[in-house]
Amino acid sequence: MDETLAAQMAQLQARVEALEGAAPENRVSLVVFSGDLDKALAAFIIATGAAAMGMETMLFFTFWGTSLLRDPAKSVGGKDAMSTMFGAMLPKGAPKATLSKMNFGGMGTAMMRTLMKSKNVASLPQLIELAKEMEVKICICDLSMSLMGFKREEMIDYPGLQYCGVATFLEQAANSKVQLFI
Amino acid sequence: MDETLAAQMAQLQARVEALEGAAPENRVSLVVFSGDLDKALAAFIIATGAAAMGMETMLFFTFWGTSLLRDPAKSVGGKDAMSTMFGAMLPKGAPKATLSKMNFGGMGTAMMRTLMKSKNVASLPQLIELAKEMEVKICICDLSMSLMGFKREEMIDYPGLQYCGVATFLEQAANSKVQLFI
Amino acid sequence: MDETLAAQMAQLQARVEALEGAAPENRVSLVVFSGDLDKALAAFIIATGAAAMGMETMLFFTFWGTSLLRDPAKSVGGKDAMSTMFGAMLPKGAPKATLSKMNFGGMGTAMMRTLMKSKNVASLPQLIELAKEMEVKICICDLSMSLMGFKREEMIDYPGLQYCGVATFLEQAANSKVQLFI
Repeated sequence: MDETLAAQMAQLQARVEALEGAAPENRVSLVVFSGDLDKALAAFIIATGAAAMGMETMLFFTFWGTSLLRDPAKSVGGKDAMSTMFGAMLPKGAPKATLSKMNFGGMGTAMMRTLMKSKNVASLPQLIELAKEMEVKICICDLSMSLMGFKREEMIDYPGLQYCGVATFLEQAANSKVQLFI
Repeated sequence: MDETLAAQMAQLQARVEALEGAAPENRVSLVVFSGDLDKALAAFIIATGAAAMGMETMLFFTFWGTSLLRDPAKSVGGKDAMSTMFGAMLPKGAPKATLSKMNFGGMGTAMMRTLMKSKNVASLPQLIELAKEMEVKICICDLSMSLMGFKREEMIDYPGLQYCGVATFLEQAANSKVQLFI
Repeated sequence: MDETLAAQMAQLQARVEALEGAAPENRVSLVVFSGDLDKALAAFIIATGAAAMGMETMLFFTFWGTSLLRDPAKSVGGKDAMSTMFGAMLPKGAPKATLSKMNFGGMGTAMMRTLMKSKNVASLPQLIELAKEMEVKICICDLSMSLMGFKREEMIDYPGLQYCGVATFLEQAANSKVQLFI
């Protein structure tokens, strides 16, 4: 075996290995910061679309977005005054989310829901169900849970639901082909 | 020829080819979700800036953003009641877009337009013209067109304007160096 | 030395070099477009989180975001009428930023600040201090400074603070693993 070539080969193999290790995977990582209906729809349409294309998809819910994942059927007690107040002011779950624009005291949002139904567009709760089936991963921001005063027992049932911090999101995002802040 | 080395070479070539195939191209893909003047300006300034740097640039207009591409000079009939109402409530094209903050019933937006003129900053319609010249690609979300009740005949003339779904956006985005949700 | 193999090796080395040159660095580039407290918190939590993970992090402040970096303790004169008006209407620096939702004339924002304190979450000014220590880079959009009528002398003291255009942001973003528009 040619020793010069063999040495060059070994060196090149190491460089290729490093490149392979650093290359992002076929993933999509989205921050869902907004709790608005329109942006939540966008997030879930992108997420389920990506999952349908075979991309591993992860949604990181933070700040107002956290509120979208409360289960309207669950209620928990034992909250302090501030948490109770926050909890009452924020929409309780996906069915209660409203448009960021042209809400008009709920009328615009109702119109949009009617429109979506008539055009056979999946509703937000239906999109969440679809996301479940397509194994879209959901991670809820620890810090936001604490700030909003939400308890884990009041969140929706979602397979593999995780609570994590910004470091987990960043690790995944750095390893993804697509990252968006919604 | 050294057979061991030749075999290693062939294997390494295949790995390098795979890396080359997966590496993102020199592209920028932006989702324009917002219909606000300020965010639309940001989208077009980034898009034309990227095009000026030789990056292939694509704007995917969805939800409120779709409204920015209506042509104020065009009008279409034959819409159902809901579409007519939506059409009337949303700003008709880029010249009518308003600020997301400090609009003050249009006064803030007028101030910003005056300010932009005095500082020789291109207006939104001018930036759209510039994007045309620089061959920024525009894709309008099919689903949003349907939801907003817009017809293709009322959209602006733009070379190569396409209507597409989220899958097309994701394919391009996964192949881009920069992706942003605006 | 086997000449065929040597030639193949040279060619492959060039391809690997090209891949290495194009691979994004371990960086995060964020556009801070919003001037809202909640989004600014998200931006700085992501930025300081990324810096803590050893990623080189850069924040590009534009439009409303620019206002977050004004120093409340500094005041400058010699502005034209429009700049003075804009300056008075926009929140003067991070301590004055308000929530994008549920501000309720400042009450919601005050509630959030109290909540953050009680949960030991760093305030926005504290996060900016942390970003300094962690060497997060800050770049302020030239064009926005001019549009908002801000002068450099009224901005906060921040080590290595730069003023730049969209091209600088795009160059960094194209070379980053994570890019977000906040």
